[in-house]
Amino acid sequence: MASPAVFIGPQENPSLTEAVQRAGGTIVPLAEAEAVIVNGGHGDLPELSEKVRWVQLPSAGIESWFASGVIDDSRTWTSAAGAYSHSVAEGAVALLLAGVRGIGRAARLQSWDSETLDTVQGTLRGSTIAIVGAGGIGSAMIPAFLGLGARVLAVTRRGLPVEGAYETLPADRVSEVFAKADHVVLAAPATAETKALVGAAELAALGPQGWLVNIARGSLVDTDALVEALAAGTIAGAALDVTDPEPLPDGHPLWTTPNAIVTPHSTNPSVLRVGAFIERIEENVRRFGAGEELLGLVDVTRGY
Amino acid sequence: MASPAVFIGPQENPSLTEAVQRAGGTIVPLAEAEAVIVNGGHGDLPELSEKVRWVQLPSAGIESWFASGVIDDSRTWTSAAGAYSHSVAEGAVALLLAGVRGIGRAARLQSWDSETLDTVQGTLRGSTIAIVGAGGIGSAMIPAFLGLGARVLAVTRRGLPVEGAYETLPADRVSEVFAKADHVVLAAPATAETKALVGAAELAALGPQGWLVNIARGSLVDTDALVEALAAGTIAGAALDVTDPEPLPDGHPLWTTPNAIVTPHSTNPSVLRVGAFIERIEENVRRFGAGEELLGLVDVTRGY
Repeated sequence: MASPAVFIGPQENPSLTEAVQRAGGTIVPLAEAEAVIVNGGHGDLPELSEKVRWVQLPSAGIESWFASGVIDDSRTWTSAAGAYSHSVAEGAVALLLAGVRGIGRAARLQSWDSETLDTVQGTLRGSTIAIVGAGGIGSAMIPAFLGLGARVLAVTRRGLPVEGAYETLPADRVSEVFAKADHVVLAAPATAETKALVGAAELAALGPQGWLVNIARGSLVDTDALVEALAAGTIAGAALDVTDPEPLPDGHPLWTTPNAIVTPHSTNPSVLRVGAFIERIEENVRRFGAGEELLGLVDVTRGY
Repeated sequence: MASPAVFIGPQENPSLTEAVQRAGGTIVPLAEAEAVIVNGGHGDLPELSEKVRWVQLPSAGIESWFASGVIDDSRTWTSAAGAYSHSVAEGAVALLLAGVRGIGRAARLQSWDSETLDTVQGTLRGSTIAIVGAGGIGSAMIPAFLGLGARVLAVTRRGLPVEGAYETLPADRVSEVFAKADHVVLAAPATAETKALVGAAELAALGPQGWLVNIARGSLVDTDALVEALAAGTIAGAALDVTDPEPLPDGHPLWTTPNAIVTPHSTNPSVLRVGAFIERIEENVRRFGAGEELLGLVDVTRGY
């Protein structure tokens, strides 16, 4: 196994250097590099020689890199797609638990109100949690939910089995999960099909013990219907990392609804992206050295 | 396998009845019962005939049942000891996640402050979590922590291996965990040895990224030292279900410290005790019918 010759730039970062070295790589000047780890924005991409066989980009979505015309088909490109899944997945688990166990409510207390907390709580243990959109992010939640004693009902586009889920439904049967599951986590992309996927009927089916978590896009939920359901007790509560409109304006009822938790699109915070990128670098440099397929391969002809 | 003849009383409860029946038991009048499930306080215990070979009490701590003199050595008694471990354990996981992922902070927002949430968060993934007191409650947290990609350092009285923990230390080495672990969860009983177990030195060792969770007893933590450490950023934060003093008085700084979460001794709420008791009943009736050892056996001579 050769030691890959890797250039990191334009910005240096000791943690990235260490990750490359842990993976068996050697840090070299740009002129000698066969692999380039880009640490910076696309305006900063250094001139690449023919020697460079692989370029690792730092972001998961790379539309702007394509738009700027730097991506060519003369070498392999990888994005950080999927590298941040675990952070978002953990955020979703944290939101659901905080909701179900009354911690959102408790965090606002300034007095020892044990009576409220004694009655508003539920448990994930023994519950069924539907993950709508069990892709990279959604499926990364499953081990935590299983560890908490819940079972998982997955929804994916085609409905092929998802590891750890007791059942997987195809997207065209998504409406069934609101009655079948105790809680629903939204992790599906924003498309024409998922727009206002959750409205009054779905919330009514979810029922008064059910929590709704949205870490996908605000457009998946009909906000007015949700506000109404929260006020009426149609569902137990909602924990939202994304909203419609977003940012949620000051004075919006969701800020003060007792059974709502709003985090400001923060399940993938910059402070965690660094660590996740380092983890991805280490894995990809190891794979590059071993001649294995890289993670986050960019399809240059399709543009993603 | 015989069908156990079970009396439930003094209060009836359809869910308990169903649990007994699911376990293969038959509900009978008190005069015909060989097993009695007590659903009520100890003042309510019915007169037991000699036929009754087993009595299931509804609480985990049974000091008051002993004190009232109803427990005799002419039959088997079981408490609900351990039945509520999962609820408390889940509460501890929820508190740690809510702290580390900034949800306590977010729950108090009334404005889209994404900048704060972008910087204050950590992750349990890849972290080391020390569970001080890895007994019934502490060890029930382990599958969830493993599912979140953390590893567990356990502390038990004798330091015998705990399933799922990568290492277990005996109680006399507990001081080591504050430097070794990223986060510390307190789940140990309140004794002379654990009084003010966590003071200024332990908090300093835990460090500015570390969260402290206490679901045990308030006396384990030196509250003044904790308040100081939270204000100074010596640790990242604290999530407390128990406090010293308890209840935490109005106006106490912990109510308004941004990196503190206080829940009012509510990780074992009454709303969840019912479900856990039902689960225990089903298991114990099944065991009784099969002639297996019951869970929560009371040692009548020792008084617990």
